[in-house]
Amino acid sequence: MASPVLPSSGVLSPLGLDSVRPAPGFWGDRVALSREVIIDHCREWMERDGWIGNFRELNKNPARPRQGREFSDSEIYKLLEAMAWADHPGLPELAATVARAQEEDGYLNTRWHDDRYTDFEWGHELYCYGHLIQAGVARLRMHGEDELTTVARRAADHVCRRFMDTSETCGHPVVEMALVELYRATGVERYLEMARRFVERRGAPALADIAFGRAYFQDDLPVRKAEVFRGHAVRATYLACGAVDVAVETGDTELLAAIEAQWDRTVARRVHLTGGMGSHHADEAFGEDFELPPDRAYAETCAGVGSVMLAQRLLLATGDVRYADLAERTLFNVLATSPALDGRSFFYANPLHVRVPATPSEGINQGVEGDLRSPWFTVSCCPNNIARTYASLAAYLATSDASGVQIHHHTPGEIRHDGLALRVETGYPWSGAVTVRVLEARPARISLRVPAWASGARISYGGTDRPAPAGYAVAEGDWQVGDEIRLDLPVTPRWTFPDNRVDALRGCAAVERGPVVYCAESVGDVPELALVEARMSPPVEHLVDGVVELDVRSTRISPETDTWPYIPAQPAEQPAERPDGDPDPSGQPASPETLRLVPYHRWGNRGPATMRVWLPAADRRV
Amino acid sequence: MASPVLPSSGVLSPLGLDSVRPAPGFWGDRVALSREVIIDHCREWMERDGWIGNFRELNKNPARPRQGREFSDSEIYKLLEAMAWADHPGLPELAATVARAQEEDGYLNTRWHDDRYTDFEWGHELYCYGHLIQAGVARLRMHGEDELTTVARRAADHVCRRFMDTSETCGHPVVEMALVELYRATGVERYLEMARRFVERRGAPALADIAFGRAYFQDDLPVRKAEVFRGHAVRATYLACGAVDVAVETGDTELLAAIEAQWDRTVARRVHLTGGMGSHHADEAFGEDFELPPDRAYAETCAGVGSVMLAQRLLLATGDVRYADLAERTLFNVLATSPALDGRSFFYANPLHVRVPATPSEGINQGVEGDLRSPWFTVSCCPNNIARTYASLAAYLATSDASGVQIHHHTPGEIRHDGLALRVETGYPWSGAVTVRVLEARPARISLRVPAWASGARISYGGTDRPAPAGYAVAEGDWQVGDEIRLDLPVTPRWTFPDNRVDALRGCAAVERGPVVYCAESVGDVPELALVEARMSPPVEHLVDGVVELDVRSTRISPETDTWPYIPAQPAEQPAERPDGDPDPSGQPASPETLRLVPYHRWGNRGPATMRVWLPAADRRV
Repeated sequence: MASPVLPSSGVLSPLGLDSVRPAPGFWGDRVALSREVIIDHCREWMERDGWIGNFRELNKNPARPRQGREFSDSEIYKLLEAMAWADHPGLPELAATVARAQEEDGYLNTRWHDDRYTDFEWGHELYCYGHLIQAGVARLRMHGEDELTTVARRAADHVCRRFMDTSETCGHPVVEMALVELYRATGVERYLEMARRFVERRGAPALADIAFGRAYFQDDLPVRKAEVFRGHAVRATYLACGAVDVAVETGDTELLAAIEAQWDRTVARRVHLTGGMGSHHADEAFGEDFELPPDRAYAETCAGVGSVMLAQRLLLATGDVRYADLAERTLFNVLATSPALDGRSFFYANPLHVRVPATPSEGINQGVEGDLRSPWFTVSCCPNNIARTYASLAAYLATSDASGVQIHHHTPGEIRHDGLALRVETGYPWSGAVTVRVLEARPARISLRVPAWASGARISYGGTDRPAPAGYAVAEGDWQVGDEIRLDLPVTPRWTFPDNRVDALRGCAAVERGPVVYCAESVGDVPELALVEARMSPPVEHLVDGVVELDVRSTRISPETDTWPYIPAQPAEQPAERPDGDPDPSGQPASPETLRLVPYHRWGNRGPATMRVWLPAADRRV
Repeated sequence: MASPVLPSSGVLSPLGLDSVRPAPGFWGDRVALSREVIIDHCREWMERDGWIGNFRELNKNPARPRQGREFSDSEIYKLLEAMAWADHPGLPELAATVARAQEEDGYLNTRWHDDRYTDFEWGHELYCYGHLIQAGVARLRMHGEDELTTVARRAADHVCRRFMDTSETCGHPVVEMALVELYRATGVERYLEMARRFVERRGAPALADIAFGRAYFQDDLPVRKAEVFRGHAVRATYLACGAVDVAVETGDTELLAAIEAQWDRTVARRVHLTGGMGSHHADEAFGEDFELPPDRAYAETCAGVGSVMLAQRLLLATGDVRYADLAERTLFNVLATSPALDGRSFFYANPLHVRVPATPSEGINQGVEGDLRSPWFTVSCCPNNIARTYASLAAYLATSDASGVQIHHHTPGEIRHDGLALRVETGYPWSGAVTVRVLEARPARISLRVPAWASGARISYGGTDRPAPAGYAVAEGDWQVGDEIRLDLPVTPRWTFPDNRVDALRGCAAVERGPVVYCAESVGDVPELALVEARMSPPVEHLVDGVVELDVRSTRISPETDTWPYIPAQPAEQPAERPDGDPDPSGQPASPETLRLVPYHRWGNRGPATMRVWLPAADRRV
């Protein structure tokens, strides 16, 4: 089975790339984009940067300075994983380049040599192995043993020899989940034991204190004692993935329950509407509960990847639809947002409010601000992470259990499992109609996810038609070839309001439609977004280039001051309530105007712009 | 005249430490705190840290690694400046320690040696000279020539030789204003010319591009072309100080007007209610216009110092009261906030909202978060900057012109100028009554600042009593010893609302009283501050330990969700408006409760707490 995660037990089992074949459609187009554009884009940049050259020139040319950050090896490994899932013809050559740099004892790193393992906080050596091992597992599952899998296993064996009986661990988790997956792929139990020890020794503490504090790398508390995700959001989600993997393979229900509880609290208090995670730029970290300013949202693309990987693991372990719901939200509003339509530039951060159009610049983006997509970054994890996640996306779409098949993400394609073959046809997310046609038949339950927002959904098949509440709509029968199941998800645009504890969003509303978050984007002559107040009238749909855009009503508001922006209370005799049409500077009530909203994941494709997801709202409720 | 800034021309002239002597009172107490506690506190920490040892051991002990950050020399210089203003007996010994490290050609830095001037972006060598020269000027004006002034002049001469005809400058401004001041103190014109060239060559650009972008160190645009302060807030305000100083001494009215315009726009759009500057943690920088989330406010103490220094320069140049108004706001709400009451711990960042009580820790704070004061920091600019600013604070209080004396900041003390001697008596800011008694008399105009918030102020003297509109209340007469002028500033607590473009503050209100911003502080059992909605009723005053605290009415609100914090619109048939008393979970309207507000500058003195300046507001206007 070709899937990035293949637990040996759990409520659901994944269906891999060999079972699920996306067709043209929202996600199938993106799988193709990764295979045909993004992978080569990343490879070209890493050649240009010299990050691949670091392997090629290692120990050959002492005059050549090493290029890139101390963890740049990991970017080549993420790309190798993407290539493995995409069966990319360039993999063997790149794998051979990597293999030549491996030392006799399995050690492999272009940055560290005689000084290996002298900086666990920032050295990233185990982090690099983690991505190498994930690439090796992908290759093993897609292709079988070859040079890449050999390199990965040698590295894993080296790690087990070197670290099994120490108290050390890496500042950046990922090796934990990689080792569990290598155990799953090979049956070699020491990989699982090594992963378990890395998970357990974290928080002892195992690392030195740093300026950001140990919570930055989740070393403040043992993972099973924590109550919420905190610190660096990519590290936090990657560690949680490893903990779930260890819990599932060792039957550690306490550890699994701990991660579930941390996820619950995090999702209730520390996640942006888009599913984006992270409110702090300096340490790329979660904020405190309800600290979610949309303009300072960091919501790193890689944290979105980590969140989707974690949700998949929790879904498989528990079968709880909430994990698939958050995964979908994150896929449509973080992972689909990062790459430009042409797959050649990327957001690193994904803020929900941009006040000033970016100044375009050429080449590498040294920073990570989310106001303009860039072709490459000094730290370029996000493009490679998108490449590998898109390339393996088919493995996230559907699962199986003894009773049949579950479809979690609705996108055109074919699903085959154990004598059952299904074709999914849908214009989702623009349409809410999903048709599942039986291509090869056997008796089975076919379950279709009904997202929490889809109130009023219906399922019909075999002449029956019934309501489909949130969760899974189950169609059960002795299927015949040609049978159809139809799921209708109401994708009427809806206004969404923040809980009153999310301070930065007070008085605002956002529009969602199906799984897609919308935003206002100020391309060209639209009004300054700071001076628009939305009316809670129903949005009007327009199909533009195959994408649903929305018109809402808004009124222009006037700035209250042009000097000091904090204004004394007005005397009580002045009217406390403003009329429905706010006065403009001439004293006339403003007429409602039309404000066009576009899917958040589409913003910024038409050049520099301002953007906001949360709109100042004239009313608290519709 | 003993003042940190002594322009040779301008609408107003400063009165220095020799003319203004604060007595016990709000600011006099803080001048004494610096002299008696903060200076020694800083010196002890810099001995313990080895930062002073860097000078002592230079070229002596190759085995001893240099201690501290690359710019730690500058901290010793800030402390020397504080010692100079305070006439501290420890100055000669510390100055001698510094002097021994100076090279033959005047070069002086404990971090750089053979590799001097190889990193203008981050090397901070000119920045360190700037603070050394400011210390030398302070010493010259307080004491006369000595070893410290010699060291400073040799360094300045070295800078002029090395940099007069290059295109280089320093990543961190400060040398510009230091050189102008040394010119003012010595009359040596090359110092002014060097400063002018440093100001002008910035933005050519003069520095390499960096990850934060050149705006970080204001090298994105020539200073006279910029429209607003941007980038690192301390750098921005320090550069503006140097530009004003150069403009004033060279008669460059265009340059002065450019800084005034930048200040105007900055104050209208990029400053927190406290006067704090900076919204970004990663680069300690200004945000975009109206990007002012109170929880992510950085508002570094040193940026407050820079803002006060700049306001003083603009006030002297123009006589415009708005500069003194912002200086007062910043003094009471940033500079008075940073040090604990005992002067032994400090805020580095000064956020306006803290959601989680800090975890106390001992010793050096590697971070800069503003949830708890720390005795010392890895980068410890703020304590030293408070020390030197408090020690010279007398020079910011009053000015003179041909017609008489202007009192900008009301605090007890004596002011002497040209045959006139005045004693100021006041309980300000707790009381709004200010009495100025004539101790030595001559005919003169005595102008007392009336802040913009002080609507209804009155001035009375010589049997007259009249309204005193915002600006300066002028008392003119042939004064006799014993005459009194009385200014009454209404310090009734007032509700303040944000402009509708400050997104993060929508739906909130704050309370100010006189120049003091108030906050709610959750010490002990007070309700969770996230769940309190303030009623706009008039605050009730309480005098607690000599400080005015305020009670406002509030109601507890209930969280709207415990899961995903973004809530679908309710159907239109449900009530859109909430009743005045919000329902609690039991469905009963909540009764108004009392919420105690304390001066923002006092928060955090009673141990870890949550805090918020901006309160969710039940009503838009009183």
